[in-house]
Amino acid sequence: MATIREIARQAHVSPATVSRVLNGTAAVDPQTEARVLKVIRETGYRPNEVARSLSKRSSRIIGCIVPTIANPFFTELARAIEDESFRRGYKLILCNSDEDPAKEEAYIDMLERMNADGIIITTTHEEMDALIQACPVPMVILDRAPSKETNAYSVRADHYQGGRLATEHLVQCGCRRIVMMCGPKKYTSAAKRLQGYRDVCREQGLEPREVACDFDFADGLLKTQQLLEHFPDVDGILAANDVVALSVVKVLAAQKIPIPDQIQVVGFDNIYLSQLMTPALTTIGQPITAIGTMAAAIVADLVEGKDQPLKARILPVELVIRETSHLQSNRANGKAVDAWRMKS
Amino acid sequence: MATIREIARQAHVSPATVSRVLNGTAAVDPQTEARVLKVIRETGYRPNEVARSLSKRSSRIIGCIVPTIANPFFTELARAIEDESFRRGYKLILCNSDEDPAKEEAYIDMLERMNADGIIITTTHEEMDALIQACPVPMVILDRAPSKETNAYSVRADHYQGGRLATEHLVQCGCRRIVMMCGPKKYTSAAKRLQGYRDVCREQGLEPREVACDFDFADGLLKTQQLLEHFPDVDGILAANDVVALSVVKVLAAQKIPIPDQIQVVGFDNIYLSQLMTPALTTIGQPITAIGTMAAAIVADLVEGKDQPLKARILPVELVIRETSHLQSNRANGKAVDAWRMKS
Repeated sequence: MATIREIARQAHVSPATVSRVLNGTAAVDPQTEARVLKVIRETGYRPNEVARSLSKRSSRIIGCIVPTIANPFFTELARAIEDESFRRGYKLILCNSDEDPAKEEAYIDMLERMNADGIIITTTHEEMDALIQACPVPMVILDRAPSKETNAYSVRADHYQGGRLATEHLVQCGCRRIVMMCGPKKYTSAAKRLQGYRDVCREQGLEPREVACDFDFADGLLKTQQLLEHFPDVDGILAANDVVALSVVKVLAAQKIPIPDQIQVVGFDNIYLSQLMTPALTTIGQPITAIGTMAAAIVADLVEGKDQPLKARILPVELVIRETSHLQSNRANGKAVDAWRMKS
Repeated sequence: MATIREIARQAHVSPATVSRVLNGTAAVDPQTEARVLKVIRETGYRPNEVARSLSKRSSRIIGCIVPTIANPFFTELARAIEDESFRRGYKLILCNSDEDPAKEEAYIDMLERMNADGIIITTTHEEMDALIQACPVPMVILDRAPSKETNAYSVRADHYQGGRLATEHLVQCGCRRIVMMCGPKKYTSAAKRLQGYRDVCREQGLEPREVACDFDFADGLLKTQQLLEHFPDVDGILAANDVVALSVVKVLAAQKIPIPDQIQVVGFDNIYLSQLMTPALTTIGQPITAIGTMAAAIVADLVEGKDQPLKARILPVELVIRETSHLQSNRANGKAVDAWRMKS
């Protein structure tokens, strides 16, 4: 049986348009509508039958599509999703889209075909509205914000507040030349963190200094080297995430730049690794387990027909102070700082 | 339609017995055979039909079951498997068994039901023969060794040689009181590494010192502390894997024990992280990409009916020298060691 995506391809329209024709949720150009209906007839697509079959033959499978399993943030998130899914009687299928929209679509198609009961996704699509509208099963957007128009279910941390907290902490620690290594701005998570950084810079009368950086080790190493060339007087770095912060620490150590005495570093995510690094990383803690658990619980509730009035869940972040930053007042007293660090 | 595992449960026999009854590959007690055949008739199981349906309606899906996505070794392996699977036209479903044999069985059941074309698995089952025999689609065992009896397809690194290389390196670096933190011995990977360590100790006239340790961060932290209490004169640690080595480095740093001057550390795997750690980790490199690529290629070949004469592929390991060990001859000359470290 054809999927909505296949019909869209054959009719040369977006999946969202097919969805609109099927559901009558918005006006569609009559010629386009006729073309879509023709393809639907030709392919034998029967949405009601699919819906019936889905409700009858629940596969007890939830699909989870993440951009990359190379980032521990997503594997830790997947672990939390799996725990809650299993607790509710669902198996979890994990798919790695490798930041590739084509792979992402292939996996969504696959999950539809295998009658997955629901999908949890951190999409790499810039324009995710069509994706959401075309999905015939409950879908929860993870970590990133869907547009107001789709009003899709979503669970994410307060990235804006995280950007603020990190920048304010660096300011309190005495930094005045703070560089933000911002993740890809097409992702709302990165864009919101950047906005928080910029707002605090403006409030504090600091000039924003930005370096674009992907969310991975390799680009982190490269961009840290560029950062040190472009901003040789940098005294604080706000890394795109903990993985990038690890690269920053590596490059600074190789160049024998003392952390935190010359440059202070703050990460983002609080993956397990950040406490095992040497020096242990000061970072913005996302409630990873809570995010994953909540996403799985919402999908399971929707599958089981339970009401979910709240569409967007934005969970609070926290500042976790470890060894890559220190408060200005402690700077004069090395021993006090050390004693305080050992506890963290 | 019932799976072999369900039939086994209902007939109170092992999946392997059901497989033997179906295939006539070995003698089965007549009463048992009758009971199995009765269940097969009752459940309407038709193995030939399943086989036909599999060959006709290939799902183009390969399932990959790993013990834990929390260990980067397995996510890096899964990435390689996915790349090769996609290149060959298959999608990859990743399942995390969480070292739980019950979850592992649930995921195998699920993959059978969804007509997966093949399964790649690092099983947590001690007795994996039944698992392999009951699998109706091509299966490749990853990282661990199946028994000679099943003669299953497998791809793994030379763990024995790895154990030897690591121990010989520590001996060459001047260590005489080397402790091995060995992984769970039920896994052939851990058992083989331990055997390599023991053999070199015997050859060198060293007393083997062993601490049992799970393959994860948390147990690594705990067992390193115990190790330092039990063997206060330790001068070399062979960690169960890189993740455990990270814990070792963390505990030694917290106790201000200099690495490598007082204690030298060697890991196992060469995950990407091992070069980003500070100090960068000396480790035994597994050819992770080659292992994953080969496993996916074998499954794809088997699905497509191509001959695979070689059942067990054992790939070579290599010693990767970084900053947590240093050769005895360099010890007298700190500057030479430093210069050499910067290059690595």
